[in-house]
Amino acid sequence: MANDDNAKPKHEHKPGITNPMLYDGSFSKSVPQGDNRERLICNDCGFVNYQNPKIVAGVVCVHDDKVLLCKRSIEPRLGYWTLPAGFMEEGESAEHGALREAREEANAELEVEQLLAVYSIPRISQVQLMYKARFKGAPEFSAGEESLEVRLFDWDDIPWDELAFPSALWALEQYRTVWGQKEFAPFTNPEGDWGNFFKKRD
Amino acid sequence: MANDDNAKPKHEHKPGITNPMLYDGSFSKSVPQGDNRERLICNDCGFVNYQNPKIVAGVVCVHDDKVLLCKRSIEPRLGYWTLPAGFMEEGESAEHGALREAREEANAELEVEQLLAVYSIPRISQVQLMYKARFKGAPEFSAGEESLEVRLFDWDDIPWDELAFPSALWALEQYRTVWGQKEFAPFTNPEGDWGNFFKKRD
Repeated sequence: MANDDNAKPKHEHKPGITNPMLYDGSFSKSVPQGDNRERLICNDCGFVNYQNPKIVAGVVCVHDDKVLLCKRSIEPRLGYWTLPAGFMEEGESAEHGALREAREEANAELEVEQLLAVYSIPRISQVQLMYKARFKGAPEFSAGEESLEVRLFDWDDIPWDELAFPSALWALEQYRTVWGQKEFAPFTNPEGDWGNFFKKRD
Repeated sequence: MANDDNAKPKHEHKPGITNPMLYDGSFSKSVPQGDNRERLICNDCGFVNYQNPKIVAGVVCVHDDKVLLCKRSIEPRLGYWTLPAGFMEEGESAEHGALREAREEANAELEVEQLLAVYSIPRISQVQLMYKARFKGAPEFSAGEESLEVRLFDWDDIPWDELAFPSALWALEQYRTVWGQKEFAPFTNPEGDWGNFFKKRD
C-alpha cells in the first residue's frame, strides 16, 4: 500500500483490508438490515463493525508416548505449562496456524494427524481447535520466544497442577482416551465446563 | 454500562470489552514484545489491535434422507441455495452458533450430532465449522429473514448448479460419504481447494 499506515484516512471501511482504528467517522448503535442485534454502524457510509470470536489453534504432539509441553514465558499464566497453541492469523488455514504456533513456541516442525477437539470458551469469545500432531522428522525442539522451556513429558510426569489453561487439561485427558486410535470423532468441552476455572480432576 | 456508547472516550483499550472504533489515541505499526509480526499499537497505552480470522458455524441437517437448504435473500449470492450457516457471535459456543443460525435462517429447532468438517478459507480469513444436525422434534421449518425459501431436498434434487458457496458443496458431498455412520473424523478442505471458486464436480 502506498498509504502511510499511521495516517487517519477519512474512510476506508473495507472489512478485512483496513483497520477500524484508522477510521474517522462517527458510529451509532443500530440493527443492520437482515440482522437481529445491535452493531456499531458508521454514520457516513453504513459500514457495520461486526465483532466476532477469535480462534486459537494448537497441537497435542506425542512422541514415544511422551507429550510436548511449553512453559510460558509470557502472561497470562507465565511459568505454567501448556500445549503449543495461539491465535490464528489472517490468511492462513487452521492447520497452518497450529503448526506455526508449534514452530514459534517450541521450534518444532510438526505435521497434523487429525483434529482432536473443538472447544468453546464463551466468556472470552474463543474457539480452540486442537490437533493431534507428530514430528515431521527427528523430535527436535527448543524454547521459542514465548517459552521458558520445552519438554517431552511421560504421562505420569506431566505437571498437572502447573497447567496454564483448563483446555490444556481437557485436550491431554481426552487425547488419552483415543491414544493409538487412528480415527475418531473430535471432542468438545467436557459436559457443562466452559473453561472459566480449573475443575478438580477425577 | 452507564456510558453513552456513541461517545468517544479517550481510552478504553480493554480488548473484548470495548470497541476499537471508539478509541481516540493514535496508533503505530510495530512488532509487540514476544510477537513476530507488525500490529497496530496505541501510542499512548500500548494496546495491541490484533486482527484475526472469523468463524462461520453451520449445519448439514438431514431428515428422511433429505437435506435442509436455504435460498439466500441477502448478498452475497442472493437467490442461491446454501446450508444454514453464519458468523459466530461473541459469548456463544460454536454449536450454539450453528443452531442459532438454523433458527434464524430456517426457523428450525435442531440439535447437533457431530462435527462434520472444519474448512479454512484463507483468502477471506474464515474458518467454517459445519455440524451434522437433526430436527429436535417434528421437521418444522420456514424462511427466516435471510432466506427467500427453505426446503428439504432429496439428494438428486439438490440444486447443485445453484449452490451459493464452494463450502456448501464440500459439506454436502463429504456428508454423503459418511451417511449413516455414527462416528467419523471430521473433514477439511478438499485437497488443494481453498474455496476461491467452484471446482468442477467429478
